[in-house]
Amino acid sequence: MTSPIDPVALTADLVRCPSVTPAEGGALVLLEGVLTEAGFTCTRVDRGGVPNLFARWGTRGANRSFGFNGHTDVVPVGDAAAWTQDPFGAKVVDGWMYGRGTTDMKSGVAAFVAAAVDFVRDTPPDGAVILTITGDEEGVGVDGTMALLDWMAGQGERMTHCLVGEPTCPNDMGEMMKIGRRGSMTAFITATGVQGHSAYPHRAKNPMSALVRLLSRLEEKPLDQGSAHFDASTLAITTIDCGNPANNVIPARGSATVNIRFNDLHTGESLTRWLQDHAQAVAQETGVQIDLRVQISGESFLTPPGDFSALIAHAVQAITGRTPVASTSGGTSDARFVKNHCPVVEFGLVGKTMHQVDERVEVAQIHQLKTIYTRILQDYFA
Amino acid sequence: MTSPIDPVALTADLVRCPSVTPAEGGALVLLEGVLTEAGFTCTRVDRGGVPNLFARWGTRGANRSFGFNGHTDVVPVGDAAAWTQDPFGAKVVDGWMYGRGTTDMKSGVAAFVAAAVDFVRDTPPDGAVILTITGDEEGVGVDGTMALLDWMAGQGERMTHCLVGEPTCPNDMGEMMKIGRRGSMTAFITATGVQGHSAYPHRAKNPMSALVRLLSRLEEKPLDQGSAHFDASTLAITTIDCGNPANNVIPARGSATVNIRFNDLHTGESLTRWLQDHAQAVAQETGVQIDLRVQISGESFLTPPGDFSALIAHAVQAITGRTPVASTSGGTSDARFVKNHCPVVEFGLVGKTMHQVDERVEVAQIHQLKTIYTRILQDYFA
Repeated sequence: MTSPIDPVALTADLVRCPSVTPAEGGALVLLEGVLTEAGFTCTRVDRGGVPNLFARWGTRGANRSFGFNGHTDVVPVGDAAAWTQDPFGAKVVDGWMYGRGTTDMKSGVAAFVAAAVDFVRDTPPDGAVILTITGDEEGVGVDGTMALLDWMAGQGERMTHCLVGEPTCPNDMGEMMKIGRRGSMTAFITATGVQGHSAYPHRAKNPMSALVRLLSRLEEKPLDQGSAHFDASTLAITTIDCGNPANNVIPARGSATVNIRFNDLHTGESLTRWLQDHAQAVAQETGVQIDLRVQISGESFLTPPGDFSALIAHAVQAITGRTPVASTSGGTSDARFVKNHCPVVEFGLVGKTMHQVDERVEVAQIHQLKTIYTRILQDYFA
Repeated sequence: MTSPIDPVALTADLVRCPSVTPAEGGALVLLEGVLTEAGFTCTRVDRGGVPNLFARWGTRGANRSFGFNGHTDVVPVGDAAAWTQDPFGAKVVDGWMYGRGTTDMKSGVAAFVAAAVDFVRDTPPDGAVILTITGDEEGVGVDGTMALLDWMAGQGERMTHCLVGEPTCPNDMGEMMKIGRRGSMTAFITATGVQGHSAYPHRAKNPMSALVRLLSRLEEKPLDQGSAHFDASTLAITTIDCGNPANNVIPARGSATVNIRFNDLHTGESLTRWLQDHAQAVAQETGVQIDLRVQISGESFLTPPGDFSALIAHAVQAITGRTPVASTSGGTSDARFVKNHCPVVEFGLVGKTMHQVDERVEVAQIHQLKTIYTRILQDYFA
């Protein structure tokens, strides 16, 4: 009899693969080996230079097909000198494993791979287990999970439900799962006025004053107070730039960028209209031309609380003793693509140090996460 | 008998000297030659690498001593390719001479030099004529006219009244003289907050939001409605900068610069306090640290309307048929230093194209300006 897969050792092996987006770094090759040996049918679904892995145990088009989704790519190391440990070393110190991707989300991938492999071997289910693992979640993402889902649609491959293994717990293991996400959009604002001498502002049209007026109105009132399942929408000015070094010159041009995270009270389209209305009003008042380019990264979405989220919550509660809150907070994730395919919930470990220097994971949590994922598979196919 | 000096030829000779601040470019050497030959006692009063020229006809400490002040340095050419004529060529096209400094203010210097030389030769006055000409009015200015005045104080040299030959007419020759100037100050504002993820603005402290709030309050109401002799004070945001390229990151730091031109209802100190009060309020509301560095280029000043300004106005009216308005509008000039030495008025030609590409002067105006300056000297010593 084969011994169970150690998710901590697998996490460490993955962390040692330098898979900074979009580099494969050996991570998917490693997983393909493990999964193939365990009887999964594996297919590399690379697109646009992005490596992706599809793996299925069981038959295609099974009546019940549980999916896991995750990514092996990681964000850059940042200030390498500031790390106390090798960011690709996976060294364990005092019960914590250090390295880029230890929380986001090589531990999650290792936990669901280990859970899936052991589960199908020990208690072969009546159905299929599908793993979709991408090498581009941290980048632009268009050739990552989207490529996998496009390919699956063409092949008649289908998950009936899917769990994304991103870290979801703010502080304590088990406290939160995610049943949706706010939408995300970015507005790039350019103001073009008329240059002039600082001593004669009435002869110029100051683009910076127009930007200040516009941004001040955008921030004047909260976008909303939140909705049944969502936190309040938020707006953040991420930059304002002009680059005019001359104090005696009113510049001709300036720009600003605004990022909006929005709940189900808005859509990318309704917010674009809102931005355009404000921009137009300020343009009319000031005579400054205001151009708006809007990039919608994702609309808000929700898997309404129901049987599937209840099943996840029950498994988490059984293992951790905590009932996870069904949240829609936080940044974007590939769940925004999966939700077009099937009901999707996200659950993973504590993500406190993700993207930071000295990113690290409590080793005990990786074991616990594998146990939770195993329990979810058991309950799902029970 | 020597023929009169042609102020147009002298302007052209000066324009051909590439005297971009603080380069002497041959301009002061040229003037020293002309003035020495005409019987003026000339002294180069260079300080801190800045070239300056002092010239006196008549005796030191004369009872009545008329001064002219001006500068031969010019601002940079800017986009050289955009000029239709050589910026240092002084080419005349359709009655207009093109070149950097043709209006600001080599024509003014040429006109008062020509007027002074011809006047003292043809009708030697009972008194002195003093010319103070600097090579740094467009730059920082601390070693320009200030150096000349410091040196004069040490030498017992004194002007009883002074005319600065800067361009003062907005559109038509003769329409405006200046009897004071608004003060000028620049505030460099730095906001330091706490970096964070755009999706969680409540965990960050956004320095750009704090700057928008502060700048919006500074621009909310006019500083004043003007005073007896002054236009309203003005405030201009000259730049806002951050340089954050990441839409998903709230930056830690941003900066802005504000330039204020203020009348006699304010002082640099009172406005610094006003800025500090607003900055402190926004810092308290937002938790963002706001640092303020203030640079006061000059306080406002006024030569109250009286005999001297009446004499200038009368001469201008006699030659142009226009009675010049006694204004205090516009940017700063070296009159802000001269006013500590003696009563000072500014009068010069139309300055429309100063600092611009294709800076140019109507040739006829240079002749007219020499005639006006001559008439002023005649009336002053009559």
